Amino acid sequence: MHTPPPPLHTNYLQMNISKGFSYLKLLYVLPLFSFFVGNLRSFCTYCLSKLSLAVPELQGEPEDISKEKARMAASQVNGPVLVEDTCLCFNALKGLPGPYIKWFLEKIGHEGLNNLLKAYEDKSAFAMCIFSLALGPGDEPITFVGKTAGKIVPARGPSDFGWDPVFQPYGFEQTYAEMPKSVKNEISHRGKALALVKEHFASANYTVQSDGSA
Amino acid sequence: MHTPPPPLHTNYLQMNISKGFSYLKLLYVLPLFSFFVGNLRSFCTYCLSKLSLAVPELQGEPEDISKEKARMAASQVNGPVLVEDTCLCFNALKGLPGPYIKWFLEKIGHEGLNNLLKAYEDKSAFAMCIFSLALGPGDEPITFVGKTAGKIVPARGPSDFGWDPVFQPYGFEQTYAEMPKSVKNEISHRGKALALVKEHFASANYTVQSDGSA
Repeated sequence: MHTPPPPLHTNYLQMNISKGFSYLKLLYVLPLFSFFVGNLRSFCTYCLSKLSLAVPELQGEPEDISKEKARMAASQVNGPVLVEDTCLCFNALKGLPGPYIKWFLEKIGHEGLNNLLKAYEDKSAFAMCIFSLALGPGDEPITFVGKTAGKIVPARGPSDFGWDPVFQPYGFEQTYAEMPKSVKNEISHRGKALALVKEHFASANYTVQSDGSA
Repeated sequence: MHTPPPPLHTNYLQMNISKGFSYLKLLYVLPLFSFFVGNLRSFCTYCLSKLSLAVPELQGEPEDISKEKARMAASQVNGPVLVEDTCLCFNALKGLPGPYIKWFLEKIGHEGLNNLLKAYEDKSAFAMCIFSLALGPGDEPITFVGKTAGKIVPARGPSDFGWDPVFQPYGFEQTYAEMPKSVKNEISHRGKALALVKEHFASANYTVQSDGSA
C-alpha cells in the first residue's frame, strides 16, 4: 500500500479521480489530477483536476470493483488515474449493502437503512473509502483503503449529504451529518484514504499542486 | 417486446446466453445458441449452445444491466447473443436486493434474506428474469421480462438452488424449492421470460434446434 509509485516515463501526466455511476449514464464529475514530473524526483509536483469519464459501476467485492474501475479509466484516458469508491458496510449483513449503498439509500432512504438491521442487536457498521491508482493502461492498480468504524442510528443532522445522518462514528456522540466538517474530515474514511494517497506520493518525493477543480 | 427480429444478414449466426459474474472472474457457463438461417425465413432454424464469456456484472436498474451486458457480449463475440439475468425483488425494499440478490444470498443466507424484511409487515416479492437479445455489435438489445409474484418465507425445501427455498409464489403452498420441477417451470419467472423469447422467434418463423449443451 505504501510502496513508492513505479518510475514515471513521461514528463507530463494527467491524473484523474473519477467516480463511476451506472454504465452509459452521465458520470458524476470528480477530481482529476495532473502531474508534472521534473528531471529530478525531488522536484516532482502533481496537480489535481476534475475529470468526467463514462466508467461502469461494477458488482463485486469493493477492492475488486475499484481496481477494475481504475483499469478501465486508465485505458480510456491512456494515462494515470486515481478513482474513488465509497461503501457503507453493516457488520450484521457481512459487509452489505457495501458497494450498493447508493441504490439502497436512493430506494429506501435513511429509515429503510435502519430497518435493514431491525432483526439484529448489532448495529455496528464501517464506512470505507477506496482510492485506486493506475499509472496507465495495463498497470496493476494500487489501492488505498480508509475505514471508519461506527454504528447505524436513526437519522440526525442535515440530510443533504447521502447517508451521513445515519452513521455515527465510534467515540463520538454526533453523526457524520452533525459534525463540523473539520472534525469529520479528520476522522472520516475518505480523509484516511486520502492521507494514504498523499503518503504514497510523498514517499516518492512528489509534491502536490491543484488546478482548483479538485 | 414481441416484434419480429430485424432481418438477419448472415447465413450462420452463433447465439449465446451468458450470465456474467464479477468482471475478470471466470464466468458461469450458460446456454449458447447457434442459428442457421436458410434462404427462406420459413425454413430458418436456430440451435442452442453454451458459451463462456468474460462479461462484467454491472450495477443499475435490472433492464439496463441486462441490455448493457448483451451489448458487451455481442461486441465480444461479434455476433448475436442472448444474455440472462435474474433478480429477486422485495416490494418493501422498493425492488431491492433485486440484481444484487446473489451477493445477499452468498453473504447472509436464507435467514438473512428473511431478516431484511423484519421491520415490515409486507413480505411480498417478485422473481424476475430478463433475457436480452442483441443481434450483433451496435444492435439495440430487445428485452424479454418474466415476473412471478410471491412472498419471502422462512426457508423450506431442498437448499441446493439459490433462494428457491425462501420464495413462495402466490397461489401455491409450496416454495420454489418444494415444487416439482415441472410445476415450477410452468409458473416461474424464467419460464415466462423464455416463453417470450420463443414467441419472438416463432413470430419470425424461426424454428429451434439445440446442440445439446443449452
